[in-house]
Amino acid sequence: MAKQNKQGFSFDVLRTCPETGARAGILRTPHSVVETPVFMPVGTQATVKTMSQQELEEVDARIILGNTYHLYLRPGTKLIREAGGLHRFMGWDGSILTDSGGFQVFSLNDLRKITEEGVFFRSHIDGSKHLFSPESVIEIEHDLGADIIMVLDECIPYPATTEYAAQSCRMTEEWAARCRDTHEVLNDGSRVLFAICQGSVYPDLREESARRLVDMNFWGYAIGGLAVGEPKKHLFEMVEISTQILPEEKPRYLMGVGFPDDIVEAVSRGVDMFDCVMPTRNARNGTVFTYDGKLVLKNAGTAHDFGPIDSACGCPSCRNYSRAYIRHLFQAGEILAPRLATMHSICFYLEIMREMRKAIIEDRFPLWRDAFLRRYRKEEEPYGF
Amino acid sequence: MAKQNKQGFSFDVLRTCPETGARAGILRTPHSVVETPVFMPVGTQATVKTMSQQELEEVDARIILGNTYHLYLRPGTKLIREAGGLHRFMGWDGSILTDSGGFQVFSLNDLRKITEEGVFFRSHIDGSKHLFSPESVIEIEHDLGADIIMVLDECIPYPATTEYAAQSCRMTEEWAARCRDTHEVLNDGSRVLFAICQGSVYPDLREESARRLVDMNFWGYAIGGLAVGEPKKHLFEMVEISTQILPEEKPRYLMGVGFPDDIVEAVSRGVDMFDCVMPTRNARNGTVFTYDGKLVLKNAGTAHDFGPIDSACGCPSCRNYSRAYIRHLFQAGEILAPRLATMHSICFYLEIMREMRKAIIEDRFPLWRDAFLRRYRKEEEPYGF
Repeated sequence: MAKQNKQGFSFDVLRTCPETGARAGILRTPHSVVETPVFMPVGTQATVKTMSQQELEEVDARIILGNTYHLYLRPGTKLIREAGGLHRFMGWDGSILTDSGGFQVFSLNDLRKITEEGVFFRSHIDGSKHLFSPESVIEIEHDLGADIIMVLDECIPYPATTEYAAQSCRMTEEWAARCRDTHEVLNDGSRVLFAICQGSVYPDLREESARRLVDMNFWGYAIGGLAVGEPKKHLFEMVEISTQILPEEKPRYLMGVGFPDDIVEAVSRGVDMFDCVMPTRNARNGTVFTYDGKLVLKNAGTAHDFGPIDSACGCPSCRNYSRAYIRHLFQAGEILAPRLATMHSICFYLEIMREMRKAIIEDRFPLWRDAFLRRYRKEEEPYGF
Repeated sequence: MAKQNKQGFSFDVLRTCPETGARAGILRTPHSVVETPVFMPVGTQATVKTMSQQELEEVDARIILGNTYHLYLRPGTKLIREAGGLHRFMGWDGSILTDSGGFQVFSLNDLRKITEEGVFFRSHIDGSKHLFSPESVIEIEHDLGADIIMVLDECIPYPATTEYAAQSCRMTEEWAARCRDTHEVLNDGSRVLFAICQGSVYPDLREESARRLVDMNFWGYAIGGLAVGEPKKHLFEMVEISTQILPEEKPRYLMGVGFPDDIVEAVSRGVDMFDCVMPTRNARNGTVFTYDGKLVLKNAGTAHDFGPIDSACGCPSCRNYSRAYIRHLFQAGEILAPRLATMHSICFYLEIMREMRKAIIEDRFPLWRDAFLRRYRKEEEPYGF
């Protein structure tokens, strides 16, 4: 583990795979040293569902994600500011990235209204009316106090017309500039701002979006608006277009992706950072990820299986509990069931990120990737959420 | 902590309070050294709800309870035997006590039918018909493989007529003898059998029940059929009658009790062992126990309270999280909420048992008790479940 740097922010690419675009790097924030490529567990409501912050430390998670939309509505920005920020409120000493709330506003709200000013929406909790503007979102994110904050963008659905996608890209770029301006006013060196490239599945729009945002000189760049239902070949094509344009020396974050093999494919194309509810949400439903693909713990096939979830895994769940026991806990509706399943899948995701990093540094990433994908995909995985 | 004894069973009273009946002792099983008085967290379905077995070890729980009724129905005795017993199935290395299933049959089943042979009942899961007889229950408990097993008894409701209570006592005694006979056939030294005294709130019946069971020479004795709705003065009166008759040299277990102050009162009357769903069930509903009494975490009063649940507590929840954060988790329906609340309340229960033991050994139990009860009861606690 790299030496802790409690001073400021930096990102260094240590090694790039000569055959693929895969990069191993170090992202430093005032809270932790994050080795990339990295998977960030999702802590929507100031908790990575079912896990304690001590468990996150135990499995060496160094950065997690918080959702601005959810935290803004509950417990509210004011309370978190009163607590001294999100880190102190939730008792988490590692790094935090907050999204802008845009994705939730667009995916959870039927009654939203988008204007140049921002997006009007109703709370899914109590129906109250709210406005997220580029300015207000950056203010909220500064109040929440994450290390990395995201601009407000419009995440459009798939499919979308070229016209709509183009128009939305322009607005997202304008919003990005306004976010940057607000951030510069509020910036005290405690956090950095990432822009989000959009453009649906249109190569021209993706290129243009990336170029324009690069010109605005953000600290880091996300690729957004993907994994929203488009065919997988489009996903990787758009990632490739984006990473070819994004600056070498800055971190790249593919938002909301995904399955383990998708992450490996995206690392292969030069992405450094990932987040997804996949490992946590699926685990709560009784499905975990292993080196041999997905495993449905609730299936009758595991009823008499006294082996661990994954014999290649050294996580606390696999060290101590059998598939048969965890299946029983799911059948019985016990809280320990989603806990053990989540713990495994988060460990698995973090472990494959570490393995990829090591393989990149040791110049054997393509071999690792091919071996991983062959084993993992022994059965075809349908794509979707 | 006393030296581990992996050989067999023993119980020694180390000290008895000269002013009260309180005792400090050591109960040894092949799995752990249990310091008494002890509170046994309830692991109904092979899990102490929300906690991992590693967390139970972390808070120094050395014996937990499993429910025969639940385990027999799901995952089933056969699967647990196949796994190598309950300890191995659930990955718990400490001691386990299983109840006889009687209490659940009587409290969960409207369609039960009691005969001298045993009790016919329907599964609450699938409606299937089953018989628990003294013989079958002991066989099931041997298959589950707990360290301490309980006889099948009839736990009658309150109020009950003298006639019904007397008749039920006779049957419970006969069942106890049949349980003992079956246990003697199956006994390989891996577990010991406790009898259960009954008699409702009738002093004569309580006395007679205790005397007859003592004559049958069980390894330990439970006091059952209490905390089922009777006035609290009856509870303690019945406990006192029982502990005056039960042998000094054998462990005494008050089943299903209770609130922290009730446990202190019962220790004061010579009880060594306790179990109750109170700390775990209430925690899941957002109520925890502290030195200052009950605390409802969901109340608005904790919304801006950035202090721990109990500033006198050193448990993992109190060391790391605030009331405001845990309240937020409850409001948001997050699994970490019942986890943190349960962790605290189990720690609190275990801690007051350790404090009582120390006070007994140091000949200052009455002082400790009075100080604890004064602080804890600053507000009147209604009795009930």
